Formats: sequence, C-alpha cells, structure tokens
Amino acid sequence: MGDKYATLRRAKLHLDFIHANSTTHSFLFGALAELLDNARDAGAARLDVFSVDNEKLQGGFMLCFLDDGCGMSPEEASDIIYFGASKKRLSTLKFIGQYGNGLKSGSMRIGKDLILFTKKEETMTCVFFSQTFCEGEGLSEVVVPMPSWLTRTRESVTDDPQKFSTELSIIYKYSPFKTKAELMQQFDIIYGKCGTLLVIYNLKLLLNGEPELDVKTDKEDILIAGATEDFPERWSFRAYTSVLYFDPWMRIFIQARKVKTKHLCHCLYRPRKYLYVTSSFKGAFKNEVKKAEEAVKIAELRLKDVQIKVNQPDRTSLSSPAKDILQNALEDVEAKHKILKEKRRELKTARTLSLFFGVNIENRSQAGMFIYSNNRLIKMHEKVGPQLKLKSLLGAGVVGIVNIPLEIMEPSHNKQEFLNVQEYNHLLKVMGQFLVQYCKDTGISNRNLTLFWNEFGYQNNKDTERSLDSMQYQRRQAMAIPFIIQCDLCLKWRVLPPSVNYQEKELLDIWICANNSNLSENR
Amino acid sequence: MGDKYATLRRAKLHLDFIHANSTTHSFLFGALAELLDNARDAGAARLDVFSVDNEKLQGGFMLCFLDDGCGMSPEEASDIIYFGASKKRLSTLKFIGQYGNGLKSGSMRIGKDLILFTKKEETMTCVFFSQTFCEGEGLSEVVVPMPSWLTRTRESVTDDPQKFSTELSIIYKYSPFKTKAELMQQFDIIYGKCGTLLVIYNLKLLLNGEPELDVKTDKEDILIAGATEDFPERWSFRAYTSVLYFDPWMRIFIQARKVKTKHLCHCLYRPRKYLYVTSSFKGAFKNEVKKAEEAVKIAELRLKDVQIKVNQPDRTSLSSPAKDILQNALEDVEAKHKILKEKRRELKTARTLSLFFGVNIENRSQAGMFIYSNNRLIKMHEKVGPQLKLKSLLGAGVVGIVNIPLEIMEPSHNKQEFLNVQEYNHLLKVMGQFLVQYCKDTGISNRNLTLFWNEFGYQNNKDTERSLDSMQYQRRQAMAIPFIIQCDLCLKWRVLPPSVNYQEKELLDIWICANNSNLSENR
Repeated sequence: MGDKYATLRRAKLHLDFIHANSTTHSFLFGALAELLDNARDAGAARLDVFSVDNEKLQGGFMLCFLDDGCGMSPEEASDIIYFGASKKRLSTLKFIGQYGNGLKSGSMRIGKDLILFTKKEETMTCVFFSQTFCEGEGLSEVVVPMPSWLTRTRESVTDDPQKFSTELSIIYKYSPFKTKAELMQQFDIIYGKCGTLLVIYNLKLLLNGEPELDVKTDKEDILIAGATEDFPERWSFRAYTSVLYFDPWMRIFIQARKVKTKHLCHCLYRPRKYLYVTSSFKGAFKNEVKKAEEAVKIAELRLKDVQIKVNQPDRTSLSSPAKDILQNALEDVEAKHKILKEKRRELKTARTLSLFFGVNIENRSQAGMFIYSNNRLIKMHEKVGPQLKLKSLLGAGVVGIVNIPLEIMEPSHNKQEFLNVQEYNHLLKVMGQFLVQYCKDTGISNRNLTLFWNEFGYQNNKDTERSLDSMQYQRRQAMAIPFIIQCDLCLKWRVLPPSVNYQEKELLDIWICANNSNLSENR
Repeated sequence: MGDKYATLRRAKLHLDFIHANSTTHSFLFGALAELLDNARDAGAARLDVFSVDNEKLQGGFMLCFLDDGCGMSPEEASDIIYFGASKKRLSTLKFIGQYGNGLKSGSMRIGKDLILFTKKEETMTCVFFSQTFCEGEGLSEVVVPMPSWLTRTRESVTDDPQKFSTELSIIYKYSPFKTKAELMQQFDIIYGKCGTLLVIYNLKLLLNGEPELDVKTDKEDILIAGATEDFPERWSFRAYTSVLYFDPWMRIFIQARKVKTKHLCHCLYRPRKYLYVTSSFKGAFKNEVKKAEEAVKIAELRLKDVQIKVNQPDRTSLSSPAKDILQNALEDVEAKHKILKEKRRELKTARTLSLFFGVNIENRSQAGMFIYSNNRLIKMHEKVGPQLKLKSLLGAGVVGIVNIPLEIMEPSHNKQEFLNVQEYNHLLKVMGQFLVQYCKDTGISNRNLTLFWNEFGYQNNKDTERSLDSMQYQRRQAMAIPFIIQCDLCLKWRVLPPSVNYQEKELLDIWICANNSNLSENR
C-alpha cells in the first residue's frame, strides 16, 4: 500500500527513546507485570521468575523470566522490534497486551539490556536488544541482532551467513553469553517443545548504587529496595503477583517457589455481588460502531478502486491476477460489514459490571477496591466512600473487586491507571455507594465489625496486623469461607470440603484434583 | 558508524504505537503542558493557546498553540519524527524537554492528527503528523509529509518536485487546510520572524461523545470536561498554567486572555526558606561521574582506532583527509575529559535543596507541596506531615515549594510523577518535618491560624472558600505580601510599592517597568 509514498519521510526511533519509553513505569512491579502479561498472553501454564548472580554485570545479578508458552517463530520474534505492533490487539481472544510495548518498556525500565531466547516447533530464535551495544558502537538507531537456528540440528537459519556471524559476534561481545555453547545452554533451559526465556541484565541502580530490586533480603521473594509502603503488594513481588490476575490460571514461581495465586472473589467472608448498569458505557460502544462504519466505508472505496483498475485496458497495474484482487476486496467488504453488524448488536445489549464485595479474613489490612482491566490488576487498595474517612470503621477491611472490559475503560501506557480519569473517578464514587449498601445488607457495622475481628483473632484495631495462625482461628476461617485450590495438572480451581487441616494442604506446593476428598470435584 | 550493520534489523515504529505512546498522559493537562514546555524550550516570550471552531472535525474545534520562539529549520523540524531524539538533552542549557517525545505523546493524547507550521529565518516548514491519513491509506508505518518553502518568495524548497507535490496533495486531502492559500495563511499567523504554530484536530472524545476539553463553559479558559476535583489547577487550564513553572517568564495567553503566571514563592505570607542537604543526592553525581568516565573510555578507543587507520598504508578507508579525522578524535577526547573533570567537581560540592514554605493568602484551599523538576511543575497539592491528618488545622493552608534539578530526580515519561518512588516519598517525609518546623518558627498554630484567616476575610473554615475582594482586605494583603508583576517588554519581574489599589493594576493586561512608582525597579 505505502509504496507510492516510498520517497516520503517516516517516523523513526532514536536510541534514547528506549530509556524515555521505559520511564513510563514509576511503579517498578508494574514493569515486571508487563513481562508476566506476555507469558500469560502466550498461553503459558507456568512462569518462573528468578535471579542469577553475576558479579560482572551492573547490579550483580540477571533477572530471568522463563515460560512454557507458545514461543515465537523467527517471524513472530521480529515483531518484538516493532514498537506498537501488537497482533494481540486485533485478535478476538482477550489478550492483556495491546500496546505492543510491554516487553520493551517493562524490561528496559529494569535493566539496560535484554537477551531473549524463544523456541517454537523446529526453530530457536535469539533476540538481542541492548542499549549497551548501541551506545558502545555509537549507533543512534536501535540495531537488533536476531539469529535463528533449527531446533533439531542447531544449524543456523539464515539467507546471509555474513550477517549471521556479525550478529553472533555482537552477542558474544556484549551479552553475558560468550560462546555458542553458552547460548545453546539458554535454549536448553526452555524445558518444553516451545517457550521463552527472557534475560534482563545491567540492572538500573538506586542513587545509593544498590539495585532497585532486592533479591537478597528474602531469598524466596523479589522486593522493592527501600520501600516504605505498608501494603505488601507494593513491596513484595510475591504478594503482588498473587492478586495480579482476576482469573489466575498461569502458575507463577518466584525464585523457584510457587506463588499462591488468589481468586480474590473467593477469599472473602460474606461475599456479595452487585450488578451496576450505567448508560455512559453505551458511549464506548457508539464509538466502536462509528469506527466499524468508517472501516466499511474505506473497504468499499478500495473495492471501487480495484474494480476500476480491473476494467482498465492495460492490466499491468495489477501485480497478481485481477480476479484474486477483486475477490479479496469483496471479502474485505463483507468482513467489515460483519463486524459492523456485530458492533451494532453489542450496542443494543445493555452493559453491566459485576461488583464483588466482602471481608478479607486472611488479611485485614487488605481493604479497598481492586480494579482489574481485562483480568489484569490496574489499581489496588483504592479506598472509597466511608473508607476515605480516617478512624471510621464502616467499610474498614471490606474489599471490593471489579473487572472492567477494555472496550469500557482503557488502561494507561503503564497499566497502572485508567486513561479516562473522569470515568474512573465516577466508578470509584459508585463503588463507594455500593460499599455502604454492602455494609447495610450484611449488617457489617462499626460495632459488630470490631467484634467480628476479635472473633477472628484480632486483639486490637491495628490495621497492619494479620490474623493469628493458631488452629482455632484457622478452623473458624475454614468454616467461614470455602477453600479453593488450583490443580497443578489441569489448572482447574477446585473447592475443598471444610476441613480443619486445610492450612497444611495449602502449604503443599503440588496439588492435583485426584487429591480432592470432595468427590464432586476430583475429576 | 553503523554502516557495518547495514544488513541487521532495526527497531521500528508501528502506526499503533502513536496511540499507545499517547496513553502515558492520564492527566489531560499534562499532555497540554508538554506543548507549553516546547514553546518555553524554544525561548518563546509569548505563547497563545486558543481554539478554532470547525464543525467538520471530530470534537467541533481545533486546538492551536502559537509561540514566538526560535522556530525550526527544515532539518530541525525533521527531528520531530524521531522518537527520542532530543538535542535539548545534550545541551548544557536547562531545557525541560529531554525525552524527545513531548510533542508526539502530548498532542496525540489530545487529538488524532496534528499539523505544525514553523518559520525560521528564510525557511517555512510544515509537518503533517496524521493518524487519520495513515489509517485511511492503510499504512502501518507513520509517513510524515514535510514540505518547506522560502519565506520571502514562498517557493518550494525541495530536491524532488514529485515528492513535494505528493506531500501537498496528502495535506490538502487529510488536513483542515485544502489549498496552498490556506496553508500560507497559517504561516502568516506566525507574526514574528520566527515561531511555531501547532494545530491539533480530530480531538479525542469522552464516552458520552463530548470532547475531553471543554472550551464552551468558560470562554476565557480551557476546562477538563466533567472534572470533579476541587483544586482549580486540576480542571482549569488557566489555573494550572499560572503555577506550571517555578520561574515563569514566558507570557501565556489562553483564548487571547493573559494568564497571571505566579512566582509561587512570592505569593506567600510569612515566607520562609529552609535548606535541606541529603547524602543520597551524592549517589546521583556518582552515577554522572561513572557515565563521564565511560564516555572518556569510548572516545579514547575511537582515537586509537583512528590512529591505526591513519598509519595504515592504504588510506582509502578514510573518507576525508586523515589529519581532520585525527583532529576531531583528539578534540572529542579532550571534550570528554573536560566533562569528566566538571562532573568530579560537582560530586565534591555537597548538594542542597531550597524548601520554601508560606501561607497562600490569595487562595486558602491551595495547600500542600508543589514539587517542580527543572523548573516544571510535576506534583501539586501533595499533603505532608500534619496535613495528612483530617481536621488537623496545623499546616492547613501552608504551601511548600521545591525545585529539584534533573540530576537528582528524573521525572517519569508523562512528567506527572518521579521515576524513583522511594526517593520521592523520602522527600515528602522530609518536607513534612520542615512543615512542622515552619509552623513552630512562624508561630502559625491551629488557634492563631483561624484568627489569621478571619483577619484576612474568611468568615468560617470552609477550605474551598476564597478571600473576599473588598478593599480593606486587599489593603491588608497588600501590606502582608509585596506585590510582584512581570514587565511585558523586558519580562523582568518587578516589586511594586505597597499600595491600596494594586488590585486594579493587577487587572491591567499590559504592564511595563516604566509604570513602576518604585523608582529602584523601573528600568
């Protein structure tokens, strides 16, 4: 299409943009989450986040992300270097990534360089995205070596051996992997037929020279160095990832230890669901319809264009047989019409949001609203309504949860905010009203809430305090909320029968349906 | 330098990235501010922000930014299409823009398309950055027409007439300007010898179909539609721009009416300045020194490289006379050494921040900390220390101001946050401590603060209320704080003598030093 504009200038990327773009993530875990989103979007059943010490590198260690997702072919891998080219966005499936930027902005926020190894069927591809290399060579463009091999024979896949060896020499010189053997070892770490290993190194440092991510203090976690926030989700990556997804199914391992991912909605005592319908959502669909109408118009114009060409005496202007082109144009018009029809249907069906409320028995301090967009956590611990008043116990310890579809509210560049601040503030106001309603409906008032907490083992009103682990309270809690656990084989979530020793079960790192004494849910 | 990598892949921009990149701005005025920053960085003495109705375009109007800055030559203008290429960053002058992204992310957050007209000496250049065009033509790359003319003769400046006419036909088809005459009219709007006019159109809409920016409700302002925040700076662009810069000198006009830009530090009653020294800042300079050392190393390596080439028998490998290249390499090494020396000196000199505190008499509700980075407002109304306690009057109505140099804390992608959250939270904690100190030192306690407000015409404690305008209180205020005004000719800020009718003076849109009855400050 764009050939007729071959001589015109194009927007381009300057090396410095890699840093500028990464500065979108002020919340460091937000940068890491982008990389988890990619694994989830790749359909991974398991993701491992782990550090590998390497004193030669800035920060003293490399951060690795290993998933057993679908991996990338050489062609798919080369999309990585396109900023903004996200095939996911077009797909009908509900992918989280849509900006085609997460891998770049996320990893480059954490470190200066990344090297990615991906396996898919018969090919293995390595992508070397390195600021250190480009700076070292005085390049202003971002040059990205991308060698590929055949998985079976480990022979190079290339039409240009000279280029291939240049790419390898760059990787050996600037990456932590200095020989072909070391490179191949990385592919071996990808245990399945396909999957991806992402290695980020030369990590960003704090003003005091220490790495921003602390892997020393807690050997089984990744912490934000010097964090002062009280909510664990803000400084413990294990705590953050446990609530990162509205419907967790990918198993996440941090430093080789499994994260107990939570269906927040199912961790609540006295759970209630409220339906919220608002007309403003209609507007979003109106815009969708408008877009669809434009698409139809464009497709029809192209069709006309083609028809004219076809009817021209000289057909040289057509690169391939006329009827094919006509056929494609026709099909495109039909497709666009189909989409338009679908969008119009959606517009008719009124949209509602499900708001979940309840009391988090496991952790009293975890109050406030948890706002998910397209199953991905965007905002957490947002206090609303009575929770905004200090000292007021009404609504204290009450958690609200909502999952907002993309077409209703779009998250911002860093997936830590919503783009339309007005709509978002409105949603918070509404949730505040429903929170009050919830307290009425469940009779959870200041007075009996205090009793309630004492019952569950809180000696006083300190918010930061967690419930005691002694058996009697565990039993109470076991009775209060059904216990749900994910099968490590089928990834289904199963309800366990009320039981006194479920706490121990929870501690097992491996659990499969067959273990379930609840016969209705063990297949 | 990069020629030896000609065959390798480069990171590229996909059209979709234009939108993704713009979603960094969740605070809409933050997007507009990027465009003001560009005018200021261009050394503009005057910037006009105004809307032009055009029912044909999405949103019903175009948003225009006209400055009398240095303008851009065709070469400089072409840097716009480089994401991340900011010459400002390298310069020693204190520019605000450093990410080479503000124009793109800012304007594309507001609208789908921009057309920019810039005049510099003998050339006029138009840059057409349009998503509508690229989508309409089915382009995945961002193609940017950039025609130039001679200012005097208005003849085209081009080596490729075919290309030039293609560019014009695109602009006529997709921009609001359909003829050469209309294009030239835009250049005429740039009144000075040089300057820039930026036109943003096809504005983004809210879910309800209305434009996000409301130019109808207040004809002399630009408001965020449906905003619910109480601080005017969050919903009135006039209010926001009045405090946008720590040291305002560019005169800003919104909808043709002048903004009363404020030296916040000079608007305060009982102003006090505290010096804050912290060791952690040292770290920032250590990193600077490290960078400088690397730069020296690289330069010296290049020098060696050149010396070898020069001493080679065949000189064909040298594109220009050997001694020139040697000379350049030598000079580069010297320059880098000079920088390193400078950085080492800076490291030695202990760094301090000036914290300003006072009571904002003009607007009691304007309490909290105003945090500037490199003279540009990043955070406002940040409550600290006692201000975080509801109902506590200690510190209520006290404003704190600090301007943080770039090398100490880097702002985030959208200039609405700081990158290092830990450092930032630490700064807030420190400011809270100094706030308490300020209240002690000035004796502004809960009790006498209430009296104080009553004195200044507050009948009760409503925070949102502003002081009455009646003369007696104006006089009191005139006595309480010196009145400072900017000369419209020399842009100097002048102190006026205490006077009963200064309020009227303030209402004058034009004021020059000569009007000053304070003889020490009228030249």
